[in-house]
Amino acid sequence: MEISNILVVSPMYKEIQTLLLEKGIQKNFRYLSEDQVTKSDLEWADAFVAFNIKTEFDYRLVKWVHSLGAGVDSFLFHKEWPEQVLLTRTICSFGQRIAEYCLSYIIRDLQFHDQFQQDKEQKKWQPATPGLISEQKVMIFGTGEIGQTVAKTFAFLGAEVYGLSLSGIEKEYFTKVMSIDNYEGRASEMDYIINTLPLTENTVGLFNEKFFNAVSNVGFINVGRGASLDEDALLQALQMQQVRWAVLDVFTDEPLPKENKLWQHPKVWITPHISAVTTPSEGVDCFIETLKSIEGNQPLYNKVDSQKGY
Amino acid sequence: MEISNILVVSPMYKEIQTLLLEKGIQKNFRYLSEDQVTKSDLEWADAFVAFNIKTEFDYRLVKWVHSLGAGVDSFLFHKEWPEQVLLTRTICSFGQRIAEYCLSYIIRDLQFHDQFQQDKEQKKWQPATPGLISEQKVMIFGTGEIGQTVAKTFAFLGAEVYGLSLSGIEKEYFTKVMSIDNYEGRASEMDYIINTLPLTENTVGLFNEKFFNAVSNVGFINVGRGASLDEDALLQALQMQQVRWAVLDVFTDEPLPKENKLWQHPKVWITPHISAVTTPSEGVDCFIETLKSIEGNQPLYNKVDSQKGY
Repeated sequence: MEISNILVVSPMYKEIQTLLLEKGIQKNFRYLSEDQVTKSDLEWADAFVAFNIKTEFDYRLVKWVHSLGAGVDSFLFHKEWPEQVLLTRTICSFGQRIAEYCLSYIIRDLQFHDQFQQDKEQKKWQPATPGLISEQKVMIFGTGEIGQTVAKTFAFLGAEVYGLSLSGIEKEYFTKVMSIDNYEGRASEMDYIINTLPLTENTVGLFNEKFFNAVSNVGFINVGRGASLDEDALLQALQMQQVRWAVLDVFTDEPLPKENKLWQHPKVWITPHISAVTTPSEGVDCFIETLKSIEGNQPLYNKVDSQKGY
Repeated sequence: MEISNILVVSPMYKEIQTLLLEKGIQKNFRYLSEDQVTKSDLEWADAFVAFNIKTEFDYRLVKWVHSLGAGVDSFLFHKEWPEQVLLTRTICSFGQRIAEYCLSYIIRDLQFHDQFQQDKEQKKWQPATPGLISEQKVMIFGTGEIGQTVAKTFAFLGAEVYGLSLSGIEKEYFTKVMSIDNYEGRASEMDYIINTLPLTENTVGLFNEKFFNAVSNVGFINVGRGASLDEDALLQALQMQQVRWAVLDVFTDEPLPKENKLWQHPKVWITPHISAVTTPSEGVDCFIETLKSIEGNQPLYNKVDSQKGY
């Protein structure tokens, strides 16, 4: 595939432009914000590079679309993708970033940070023995690039790690991988549940009342997609102590509206979709790597299967 | 060495008794609290098993003293040890416990937990990119069993880990090990400093004004011994932003007196000496293992060098 003209569509296009100039890539670039793009820009372009797009564009006019994010639901979910157009996504330090995000909340829980902080305010010296990661059972929804890196981190620290995927195929670092419609048998034993799944027809509303009925007193972390979680079901599960606390980085509506009840819940942590941020520099590096692989006819490890949605 | 009579001296001796009974060890035991021990108990005993003793006993009367804790300063610091008496200490999951304790505070810092918690209270959606462990430089004082396990954990997550020890001998998992009087060249580059050193003549007051003058904006964690830290120097270093925050698990006076200024400092975390708790079950397991090694004339990995003090 020959790529000469590249259309970069992003609110942070100036930063991307500076980085691409530094790398000295010999291509024709147009940098636009989403609302500036016209049909003639698409007709001009061979490649379309963007992050979390909101507008519907006619991607049939280009050869290749590259997502600067890991999730590609803004291109695929409830949409029809033109099969002849290559779609790739950014896979950089996402796995590691998400692993450390999850680890940070689980390990603060085990180390009683909140308890000791409260004791400190009252100048109270009250020993308690922290839990070890090696005593925990962690269930990870999604065994792809990201889920596997999360599993690797927890396995290194000695946890029992259970994976759930569409196929149920065993993967390294997981004690056991199960098929996704088969979580119930094991879910009740878990200490922590982590969702890393992409948003597809199979994962919309996956964490619903039925799911929460299967767990007991867990820490629940969502770093996948907001629409996989039924927020009302979560609130009820918190009340019923099926869920001990929830850490949410993704939401159906982002930014999370001020009137959303989650903001005020004392057992819910909210972070503004930062667990797997692409820094512009990482996004650009991954884009250049993909460009080189395309031009050199190399295999693409970050090609999206538009049928599967990831 | 033949061990028949074992004197267990501990406030938690009842729990230890239950555990030893379960293990079915065929020895004669006496279980006493510290203030109940008389000279005739010591004359009767071959072995003396205790944790963090406060009284001075005449250990020349026994063959072997086993510490249920990792630190043995209560037996050795500013005291003379009878060379003919074997001294052993508990080394169990200490390394792992301390590694997770340190990791928990460093990773919450990198993941901006406090910032996001504040933002949540104000329903503020304000993205910021967390730091990765792999971008950090961590300096660990002490490269023994505990320091090395801490190093292993941070090295696995990609940090650059510098070690400091008396000998300066290179050890696995450390990017580089330096001699302890030689920290200044490197200290200014560090993001985090962790002290795991035992209390000896070489480490009393090691973290003093001179030390803090060599660092800049670090996170400082003390899981070694309280007396290695000059508390006034730390308070000044916090004010001068040489230290960004401190996490302290050990103190010269424990429990930390209510009037101590550290309680009220907003940039100081205080935990009640729990980073390396011996659970009674771990302490008993390690004691039994050591007993078997002694009776089988096996090498002792947990024998204390009374000259070195660890």
